[in-house]
Amino acid sequence: DIAREVSDFFTQKSLEGKKIIVTAGPTKEALDPIRFFSNHSSGKMGYAIAEAARRAGAEVTLVTGAALADLSGVTTVRVTTAREMYDEVVNRYPEADAVIKAAAVADYRPEHVSMRKIKKSDGAMTVTMVRNPDILKELGVRKKDQVLIGFAAETDHLDENARKKLETKHLDLLVANHASDSFGEDTNKVTFFFADGKEQTFEKMPKRQVAVRICDALADLFEMSEPSDR
Amino acid sequence: DIAREVSDFFTQKSLEGKKIIVTAGPTKEALDPIRFFSNHSSGKMGYAIAEAARRAGAEVTLVTGAALADLSGVTTVRVTTAREMYDEVVNRYPEADAVIKAAAVADYRPEHVSMRKIKKSDGAMTVTMVRNPDILKELGVRKKDQVLIGFAAETDHLDENARKKLETKHLDLLVANHASDSFGEDTNKVTFFFADGKEQTFEKMPKRQVAVRICDALADLFEMSEPSDR
Repeated sequence: DIAREVSDFFTQKSLEGKKIIVTAGPTKEALDPIRFFSNHSSGKMGYAIAEAARRAGAEVTLVTGAALADLSGVTTVRVTTAREMYDEVVNRYPEADAVIKAAAVADYRPEHVSMRKIKKSDGAMTVTMVRNPDILKELGVRKKDQVLIGFAAETDHLDENARKKLETKHLDLLVANHASDSFGEDTNKVTFFFADGKEQTFEKMPKRQVAVRICDALADLFEMSEPSDR
Repeated sequence: DIAREVSDFFTQKSLEGKKIIVTAGPTKEALDPIRFFSNHSSGKMGYAIAEAARRAGAEVTLVTGAALADLSGVTTVRVTTAREMYDEVVNRYPEADAVIKAAAVADYRPEHVSMRKIKKSDGAMTVTMVRNPDILKELGVRKKDQVLIGFAAETDHLDENARKKLETKHLDLLVANHASDSFGEDTNKVTFFFADGKEQTFEKMPKRQVAVRICDALADLFEMSEPSDR
């Protein structure tokens, strides 16, 4: 019911005083000035998280490959390629309390980028693609006391791939969804996989509400990590 | 000055009674459910042309790969791939009086499309790309009395490439621009190359104004082609 939805939306845990980096959107990997390789991503999920985190009182930096309108009260850094996103996130990481990596970063880029438009010819064309730096993996390696939240858009073996990614990248929370449930939609159906083994599956809900759940989970993760320092 | 601009914008020749197909935006060519190849194109130029043609009284069908808001009074057909755009345009072509091809259609697509997300591995990945059907060339071949207007976004040898494209594709008008002058911008700097050898270079202007110039040129081309039937 509507009253419940409104209440869900507004009863949000505080992230006051926390510095949070959110990444959003696709990256674009040029083949030449006209052509590029990319991933499906509207950026809506990342923007919704940035907005929810800001509303919860956090100091938010949004590193984005999506061309959506800037959010008021959020520091927005626009990037095109995975390597640009890597630089912007990794450089800010030591100062951050958390990173929520909602961007759909291209795993591969064309090995050679032509400065001029490649003229088409009749036959086939072979494009050699090389691996981009793995931003999340690097954040896992450099992790001190930051909370790390990743996403997985999978088409198969969702649970198995999610658990594996959670462990290999030293994440605190992985938000998994079936790829077809989210692309270009305003809603998303997600499962939370926590590092402690806990899982939480949600019904399909607006991305704005998924964003609030993620920010609340982040607030809980901050709370759990604090007592040990005292 | 403003008065001049307003006057430029509103003194538009009539396209009353004409059926016009406008194509807009990029196409996306899937590698798997997550990854795709595409071309830079916001779709703004094509949408501006569709809007100007509708305002001039034409019956407009917009075949688009861009996710912009629908235009009122314009029949909008949404497509993703070059092959879908080919089908939608070629099937409507016999009934059309003109086609204005503002879309940035991908020349190549991955030969194999994986139904499942391709898991990344450490090394390089080779993608074999095959040629997409050439929509404009096909329209040139099937041309009866339709007027054909194409675009060329070039990075080099603009004039030479434009003249060549105009001839090989049997166009009536080719609108050429330097790629970097238009991408993502609301303005464009174009040169018109006509089949009769005439050329017309414009100052940088808003895409809405470029659209009006193109529609006016189309009205002139319709007028020139009519007397011969009488």
